[in-house]
Amino acid sequence: MLKLYYGPRTIAVATLIALEEAGAEYEPVRLDMANLQQRTPEYLAINPKGRVPALVTDRGILTETPATLAYIAQTHPDAKLAPFDDPFAFAEVQSFCAYLCSTVHVAHAHKMRGTRWVKESDKAALKAMKANVPNTMSACFSMIEEEMFKGPWVMGSQFTICDPYLFAIASWLEADGVDVTPFPLVMEHRSRMHERDSVKRVMAMQNA
Amino acid sequence: MLKLYYGPRTIAVATLIALEEAGAEYEPVRLDMANLQQRTPEYLAINPKGRVPALVTDRGILTETPATLAYIAQTHPDAKLAPFDDPFAFAEVQSFCAYLCSTVHVAHAHKMRGTRWVKESDKAALKAMKANVPNTMSACFSMIEEEMFKGPWVMGSQFTICDPYLFAIASWLEADGVDVTPFPLVMEHRSRMHERDSVKRVMAMQNA
Repeated sequence: MLKLYYGPRTIAVATLIALEEAGAEYEPVRLDMANLQQRTPEYLAINPKGRVPALVTDRGILTETPATLAYIAQTHPDAKLAPFDDPFAFAEVQSFCAYLCSTVHVAHAHKMRGTRWVKESDKAALKAMKANVPNTMSACFSMIEEEMFKGPWVMGSQFTICDPYLFAIASWLEADGVDVTPFPLVMEHRSRMHERDSVKRVMAMQNA
Repeated sequence: MLKLYYGPRTIAVATLIALEEAGAEYEPVRLDMANLQQRTPEYLAINPKGRVPALVTDRGILTETPATLAYIAQTHPDAKLAPFDDPFAFAEVQSFCAYLCSTVHVAHAHKMRGTRWVKESDKAALKAMKANVPNTMSACFSMIEEEMFKGPWVMGSQFTICDPYLFAIASWLEADGVDVTPFPLVMEHRSRMHERDSVKRVMAMQNA
């Protein structure tokens, strides 16, 4: 059976929702990230990166959200979470996931995780990074709203792994200081996601 | 026919090598990135992100290296550049590509592209980011060397899209101020890549 290590309100929420959408049998394992459980030797033995998600499979452990999402989609084909039989459509899904992981999530991380890039002693640099997060996240979501989002789901009529991934990151916007008014498509998407049973189950899990 | 917009010594080198490995018919289109051709209205109409690579296909334009690489692999199955028929093995490929795009490339970008995250007027923050690049890139390559690289190719005996992707980024190490001595596996891999005809052709192209 699959096992997913996650933290509430982290990017692992995307993988949790995908598991629920797929109807996968899995065990969720919650990490106490406020107390840095992800940095303990026990967890670093599971994921040396000290991050979530980590998806334990019978073949080994997978990390990185684009990989866990596509793996769940490919191993649960009935849920039709990614168009593996159409290389261009699948590449569009991959491109969206790559933009989220390399640009959008990274923009967000400059708020609280600035020490990934500058030394902890560089307080002014950490402050400058944090101060600019509303601008960079707004720019990312303008790109999504205006150039990428097809509607009603990210890729159009078919719900895909892009949807829980966008949802997880869009859930951070207000706390990142972003004015969401210019992003009605993304905001309607977020509301539409909240109506899904998969999302309700994951929200109940993370808020428990 | 495919068309690839690239810049010399950028991450687009990975996609160029994959196209050569696949035996794809394509037209390379070189951008004058020193003069910011990637920011012209003409190019922004092709890729609104103002980045490379952009792969023009008969169905539309693809961006983001993990997506262009997997697309080339899936549409040129004889080259066996990704194990699409083995979900776990494919997820390992995806996980490696996601780590490169979200963590390693991002660490590197803090040297010259700091204005992606702080304002141009924050000179001290830009300097602090740049100064720390040797440390963050070293940490990334320690993770690759010790935890990820299987050898002789990234995923073991089979050459995959992970190889040109790693090669493109590993080519930046010395200029990033990284001491490469602790990474013998990655350095041997880089040398081994230089011996391939695909890489020789791409090196000749970018140095022309």
